[in-house]
Amino acid sequence: MSRPELDETHDPALACWVESANHPATDFPIQNLPFGRFRRGPGLDWRIGVAIGDQVLDLEAAGLIGHQDMHRLMAGTAAARRALRLALSRGLRDGSAERGRFAEAMLAQREVELGLPCTIGDYTDFYTGIHHATTVGQLFRPDNPLLPNYKWVPIGYHGRSSSIIASGQPFHRPRAQLVAAGAAAPVLAPTARLDYELELGIFIGRGNALGEPVPVAEGEDHVFGVGLLNDWSARDVQAWEYQPLGPFLAKNFATTLSPWIVTLEALAPFRAPFERPAGDPQPLPYLDAPAVREAGMVDITLEVWLQTAAMREAGRPAERLSASNFRDAYWAIAQLVAHHSVNGCNLGSGDLFGSGTISGPGPGQAGSLLELSRGGRQPLALANGETRAFLEDGDSVILRAHCERPGARRIGFGDCAGTVLAARS
Amino acid sequence: MSRPELDETHDPALACWVESANHPATDFPIQNLPFGRFRRGPGLDWRIGVAIGDQVLDLEAAGLIGHQDMHRLMAGTAAARRALRLALSRGLRDGSAERGRFAEAMLAQREVELGLPCTIGDYTDFYTGIHHATTVGQLFRPDNPLLPNYKWVPIGYHGRSSSIIASGQPFHRPRAQLVAAGAAAPVLAPTARLDYELELGIFIGRGNALGEPVPVAEGEDHVFGVGLLNDWSARDVQAWEYQPLGPFLAKNFATTLSPWIVTLEALAPFRAPFERPAGDPQPLPYLDAPAVREAGMVDITLEVWLQTAAMREAGRPAERLSASNFRDAYWAIAQLVAHHSVNGCNLGSGDLFGSGTISGPGPGQAGSLLELSRGGRQPLALANGETRAFLEDGDSVILRAHCERPGARRIGFGDCAGTVLAARS
Repeated sequence: MSRPELDETHDPALACWVESANHPATDFPIQNLPFGRFRRGPGLDWRIGVAIGDQVLDLEAAGLIGHQDMHRLMAGTAAARRALRLALSRGLRDGSAERGRFAEAMLAQREVELGLPCTIGDYTDFYTGIHHATTVGQLFRPDNPLLPNYKWVPIGYHGRSSSIIASGQPFHRPRAQLVAAGAAAPVLAPTARLDYELELGIFIGRGNALGEPVPVAEGEDHVFGVGLLNDWSARDVQAWEYQPLGPFLAKNFATTLSPWIVTLEALAPFRAPFERPAGDPQPLPYLDAPAVREAGMVDITLEVWLQTAAMREAGRPAERLSASNFRDAYWAIAQLVAHHSVNGCNLGSGDLFGSGTISGPGPGQAGSLLELSRGGRQPLALANGETRAFLEDGDSVILRAHCERPGARRIGFGDCAGTVLAARS
Repeated sequence: MSRPELDETHDPALACWVESANHPATDFPIQNLPFGRFRRGPGLDWRIGVAIGDQVLDLEAAGLIGHQDMHRLMAGTAAARRALRLALSRGLRDGSAERGRFAEAMLAQREVELGLPCTIGDYTDFYTGIHHATTVGQLFRPDNPLLPNYKWVPIGYHGRSSSIIASGQPFHRPRAQLVAAGAAAPVLAPTARLDYELELGIFIGRGNALGEPVPVAEGEDHVFGVGLLNDWSARDVQAWEYQPLGPFLAKNFATTLSPWIVTLEALAPFRAPFERPAGDPQPLPYLDAPAVREAGMVDITLEVWLQTAAMREAGRPAERLSASNFRDAYWAIAQLVAHHSVNGCNLGSGDLFGSGTISGPGPGQAGSLLELSRGGRQPLALANGETRAFLEDGDSVILRAHCERPGARRIGFGDCAGTVLAARS
């Protein structure tokens, strides 16, 4: 596994001639350089850009690429990616000779529309949050919360690509079959238990051919980067439909993805070892490699924020509901790639993995309302006096993430936001 | 639901100037006219064709379409499809004035490569075979075979699009995690319980927008046609991994699709009423419509044939293992469309539904080896003295289907074939 090395692009002392990129709280300093797609108006073609401060750099206009095919960019070699990152970093530094050319290719993020960072191919949702799996398991199967396969198999299932939507796009509360409390038969009704799920989105860069597994040691060579993903879930629908083949209508009405792909290169300063708690089985050999053990995990703080309609009307900002860390995942990214392909399944550029809901072990670290409200029985008290067991119409959920450690520049992911509209009549 | 009406294209007395199309046993008489894609050699572009007897008509060369975009053809209106079918039927009839032009656009099927009939978008696998669900449920959950939701919910789950392969393409026996009989811990090993599943593939024509459900009465307006689908399954992998989120590596190594899409127009003479056995719940209103009750089902005989390596070497033909009928499905096609979209999920042109394994109630009517061999405990005896509990390397499985009734011309689907290669070392 050619884990990205630290190089001059990670130097925390680097300053950028885009002033907003030097603000300590920006998600997009010169050390980040995430990729996304933008357009100047509806109906125009999507263009590939890189976020820097509150700006976006049009890569083709800056002379750095000669096409607008994000899959092609993602499928490139690690060397090509490193070269592009270096060119971006050098061109954006204070005193760069490229400043004039780059400045002409710069647009304010607030003046463009940010779309999905790429067309999504196949979408797979994993289930790597062991604290989430345990808590949810207690609610759905009190006698059998964590199933016997969990600590052996990186559990995953196929999700719906067509309904993955860009951050900012609202959606209607879904109707589907559910069994109301105390009822004998199901009805078609708007979900009464609408929830969010805090996940990392993992983007496949280079694919593999059908029948040719990716060894775990090469797993990250097939990953372009990561973003944030909200796997909206209708819990009453899920409880009724999910056996024996898994969630379906409970999930496939909408999945929100953040606009920027933070590359593995940008995450290099924030790597962490992969460790198993005492007593847990070690991964089978096809999921085990020295590089995974040494630095397979990534230290990413993940947060959920809620802004209700009442907060919005009162001019109140969003309120943070929880925070967890991607280190709480039970499996490393390279292990997900190796597992998914071990049977020969082919992955392609632009395929997306969800990490599964990442919850921490403590209170206030749960990545879904189902967990925070104990299955709806203990509604959360919000600062403005409202309570929430599940999401209500008008609620906006914003996922955020950042990486920080001493000696490295803090980088962030940008918002992954969505708003619940009333069910259609 | 604008169910295709019988018209002059269904007249069983029609004869074709392509002699092989008039043979009583052909799958592709002039009353069928299924769509597919072919090419004259590796690396060339796929072209849209229609099967007629042992020939394929190149639609663009015949002057009938001006593009090679199957999704565009599939997304067309029912009126456009009917007009194209009528033009094909008239041009192929004995004595047609178009014969010269069409004849120049005709190729022998054996001289071209047949591919997937279209690029597959999202793939959903349903579970409409109630006899299959009951028998498999008895094997996986002896105490709880048919779950309480089964007779209310058209159970489905998302499948993998990338590994859907064309008929004729072999694949390697997959390796994945499984727990060998009597073992305490899982191992990575080639599946020892490789199976096929006999399914109908249902192709979406016109899509729907996110958030806008398709009413059941309009369900078939969004369906272009049907083909055959073999949902290859590794039963030992499935048993270990499938809870709680459904099958994953047990299925996504390969799914074989037949080359031709038989249109709903071609199936018009073979419609059948939708009925529920006494005591079963009636479908909820969003799954109920007069047109579904009157003629929502389709009478399609489905068959599984096996040719082992020993048979092939001895020059023996394939042997039929079972036959069932698509009328044995518990849900109608229009109900699958309505259910999938009731929560607002958007379907697109080229999306594919699997029907789920279609087994009949009787012996010799099961659509998988798991059922035929009673979980592997009662291996099948083949005519050449071999036995099969599950598939062995070198086995070729061929799915076939046809429709016939008095007063209508028999139509067939063509072969959906695949061969198991040894696991890669």
